[in-house]
Amino acid sequence: MNGAETVLRTLLNNGVDVCFANPGTSEMQFVAALDDHPAMRGVLCLFEGVATGAADGYARMSGRAAATLLHLGPGLANGLANLHNARRAHAPVVNIVGDHAHSHKRLDSPLESDIDAVAATISSWVRRPATSSDIGRDTAEAVAAALSAGAGSPDRSHTGTSGAISTLIMAADLSWEAGTPPAPHLPPAPLRSVPRADLDAIAAVITGPEPVALLIDGAGLSEPGLQAAARIQKATGTATFCPTWPARIRRGAGVPAIQPLGYRAEAVGQQLAGIENLVLVGAREPVASFAYPGRPGVLTPPGTNVHRFVPDSGFNVVEALNELADIVAPGSLETLPVPDALPDIVDEPLRTENWAQVIGALLPHEAIVVDESITEGMNTLVPATANSAPHDVLGLTGLAIGQGIPVAVGAAIACPERPVVCLQADGSALYTISGLWTQARENLNVTTVLLNNSSYAILRAELDRVGGNQAGPAASALFDLSRPDIDFTAVATGMGVTATRATSTTELAEQFSTALATPGPHLIEAVLKPV
Amino acid sequence: MNGAETVLRTLLNNGVDVCFANPGTSEMQFVAALDDHPAMRGVLCLFEGVATGAADGYARMSGRAAATLLHLGPGLANGLANLHNARRAHAPVVNIVGDHAHSHKRLDSPLESDIDAVAATISSWVRRPATSSDIGRDTAEAVAAALSAGAGSPDRSHTGTSGAISTLIMAADLSWEAGTPPAPHLPPAPLRSVPRADLDAIAAVITGPEPVALLIDGAGLSEPGLQAAARIQKATGTATFCPTWPARIRRGAGVPAIQPLGYRAEAVGQQLAGIENLVLVGAREPVASFAYPGRPGVLTPPGTNVHRFVPDSGFNVVEALNELADIVAPGSLETLPVPDALPDIVDEPLRTENWAQVIGALLPHEAIVVDESITEGMNTLVPATANSAPHDVLGLTGLAIGQGIPVAVGAAIACPERPVVCLQADGSALYTISGLWTQARENLNVTTVLLNNSSYAILRAELDRVGGNQAGPAASALFDLSRPDIDFTAVATGMGVTATRATSTTELAEQFSTALATPGPHLIEAVLKPV
Repeated sequence: MNGAETVLRTLLNNGVDVCFANPGTSEMQFVAALDDHPAMRGVLCLFEGVATGAADGYARMSGRAAATLLHLGPGLANGLANLHNARRAHAPVVNIVGDHAHSHKRLDSPLESDIDAVAATISSWVRRPATSSDIGRDTAEAVAAALSAGAGSPDRSHTGTSGAISTLIMAADLSWEAGTPPAPHLPPAPLRSVPRADLDAIAAVITGPEPVALLIDGAGLSEPGLQAAARIQKATGTATFCPTWPARIRRGAGVPAIQPLGYRAEAVGQQLAGIENLVLVGAREPVASFAYPGRPGVLTPPGTNVHRFVPDSGFNVVEALNELADIVAPGSLETLPVPDALPDIVDEPLRTENWAQVIGALLPHEAIVVDESITEGMNTLVPATANSAPHDVLGLTGLAIGQGIPVAVGAAIACPERPVVCLQADGSALYTISGLWTQARENLNVTTVLLNNSSYAILRAELDRVGGNQAGPAASALFDLSRPDIDFTAVATGMGVTATRATSTTELAEQFSTALATPGPHLIEAVLKPV
Repeated sequence: MNGAETVLRTLLNNGVDVCFANPGTSEMQFVAALDDHPAMRGVLCLFEGVATGAADGYARMSGRAAATLLHLGPGLANGLANLHNARRAHAPVVNIVGDHAHSHKRLDSPLESDIDAVAATISSWVRRPATSSDIGRDTAEAVAAALSAGAGSPDRSHTGTSGAISTLIMAADLSWEAGTPPAPHLPPAPLRSVPRADLDAIAAVITGPEPVALLIDGAGLSEPGLQAAARIQKATGTATFCPTWPARIRRGAGVPAIQPLGYRAEAVGQQLAGIENLVLVGAREPVASFAYPGRPGVLTPPGTNVHRFVPDSGFNVVEALNELADIVAPGSLETLPVPDALPDIVDEPLRTENWAQVIGALLPHEAIVVDESITEGMNTLVPATANSAPHDVLGLTGLAIGQGIPVAVGAAIACPERPVVCLQADGSALYTISGLWTQARENLNVTTVLLNNSSYAILRAELDRVGGNQAGPAASALFDLSRPDIDFTAVATGMGVTATRATSTTELAEQFSTALATPGPHLIEAVLKPV
């Protein structure tokens, strides 16, 4: 057994049995060991951003950590943007990053770079085993640290993730030299409970005379969390909100609805107007994604009392919501109304206003919806899917675009029995487009709806908001994805994914139904025209 | 004039007039200012790794710095791998990275990350203007620092680059608030000259009794540098070598040949066997790309005297070579032999052994060859192009794959009158494949020969070398780019690039000639079968 096998077997001992890999020379022993350890599933990704995004998607759906296998500093750098999103999602991810052998570090050979500095920007835990005898322990600690906020316990897998990023940097000589026995399972720290005094204090706020809103995130957006929130809401009139794009949220017919805060500060200002107490439940205080001249960054209206009831990591949000519900709404059960019928699909050209209604009408039972629709879905997706079959939605947590296709890979591997629907904006699709190939390689049941509006539409809007001039031709060219138009059906086909193009609602409906009924990955390019 | 315009106008004052951009909200003022400053060419890239690789290619061919425009930490991270290559190429690049407004930083909004830490790993110069009055000066210093090793002077543009990476981090509020006047041109530090005593000492070594080799890099691989080296070689019998994949090297008929060190340590051992003095001329001591069990990392044979004659950055390599030639070979002029005729193209299926001969036979005059052929070109490209029309070759300096397509973008923009031939391995192409779209958008004369061997061929070889087991099916799957095969003609067509597929030498020859004769970008997928 060499050191790489010690890592691999320790990962298996600690419940990590999927590795999204884009390896190089320094990771060859790990690769070589896969044949002797078939319990570890190696999934080849053709770009590191696919590997890290897939690990994020896997974690969000399984509650468990996946490993990534990355090659030196540039490999980690290529995966960094989606690790940024994973960090914001509290997704447990264990990066295994190979490094040069100890004797080789001082030579400053071509691929040498400061791996530790890059890793530290997104990792809660970074370590290099110093000797062979450290490898097992360090690997087990890497997993436990990723799960330290309580993710990963099987009985909590339905409640979303509450983890962090660990990065284990393995010098090549430690991988090829004789290893030491793998470490056994190291239990992660359990989720903490909210103290009774805090529950009573918040219950008093909620039942008091002043208008109150709950802002819920994390596992609070699971079905049990939303059920508890609905009990509270019904008994007390408390408003409930969630972030615009949570890491994971349960939605659809029979699931208590919760109102997402708008992406724009103005919208949030209207939503929170008149609220005197904002209670954070596994959530952080809402802030604008960007500063704008003369506009506030904190979105809570001035004078609002902000109660930090349940921190956004490390605490049992569902338990807290249930206990709060038991205090303020004892014994109550929320009976959900029969949902409205989904709208008929009227045949018309696709545009921003209607594509989501098609998806909402046809969304299959227990779908996993990966939402990187950005401007195209910002105001349309939530209403269009409110009465769809129950489903989970995975959002763009860190706003680093290029997450959708990779997260869909990981979600499909975590939940092979569930259909994955990836709603993917065009501009951001190209960052990690080779994830389509991994979908084909692994024959994943992912249907990507590629929303092609031929532009970075959000940037055009942003230019106005930051006080830029009216965009002239030179500025406009930098938002414009035409000249040439991208043919996403050709790109997808080239990567082995069956692809079609829809220009009308009925075409989208037909192609979406066909894709869902046919195993393996599909891409539908939805060509959206401005009204 | 706002702060973004101060940056833009200072860049123009300092000779930076191309900006490879993948902007976001924080960079909108810079984008908005482009229409009022048509001297700045904004080139849209659909992924940051394309922008940074393009800046590298531009710098290698022009000797001048290009700017990149990147969005916050994740944007910089996406561009990091090609900045790593640019750093290893000593290419001057000025990154303009937007950041949140000062008031927004403390809010830890979704895109917040440690930009400075990431930037420091590849930059020689990192700074944040603190106030509006710093912007002009800091921008000018960023350019001067990138050029501080003497790149950028027009009269040295043919001699390759000798620069570094600067990263200017611009808080959004500084961009939108009133700016201050742009800074004038700040001359970069000039290249330094080698002291006379060093010249004399090396001349004594070269003319002494012991076998000597020159290892030349940087501007020493320009035509004047190679001419001087050839004079020295002819007069003294000194061997001359260059790195395997230099940043830029002049080659072809009439250009003095120089022997590249092999990629493998064994090959280098044979090349340097018997050499008692190795003289480094703008080069670093050769080291293996990776450590292997039981093999040395330093490639110079034990006992060799290594003379650090001209450092690899900041010194005038061409001047040093000429002065050395004047001492050891006064007045001599190298008359080059008439080159051998290029081989006729024999019609046969394409394979590793013959594709490069087709390229060599048909390479147009003054081509720029971007070489990311990796295993497919490692032993074939140099002999096949030795007698081709004179050309420049840009190599994979930092071994971070995914450089080829972006570097071709930048080279074509730097030298619009020259044909660019991008020799691109399949596995690495997918990292930055959207660079093809930018080639189409800008109508660049780039012919990409996509070498499709359906594998990460180099990793299969690496596995053997690091002492891995015989690869079983699970390990082999991680090198295998089939299941499904990637159809690069479909991918390229989808991005607006005319594409064809060649399976024989005559097909490749016909398609290559047609592509070169037709304006705009083309891609030829060369399907390589193992023998």
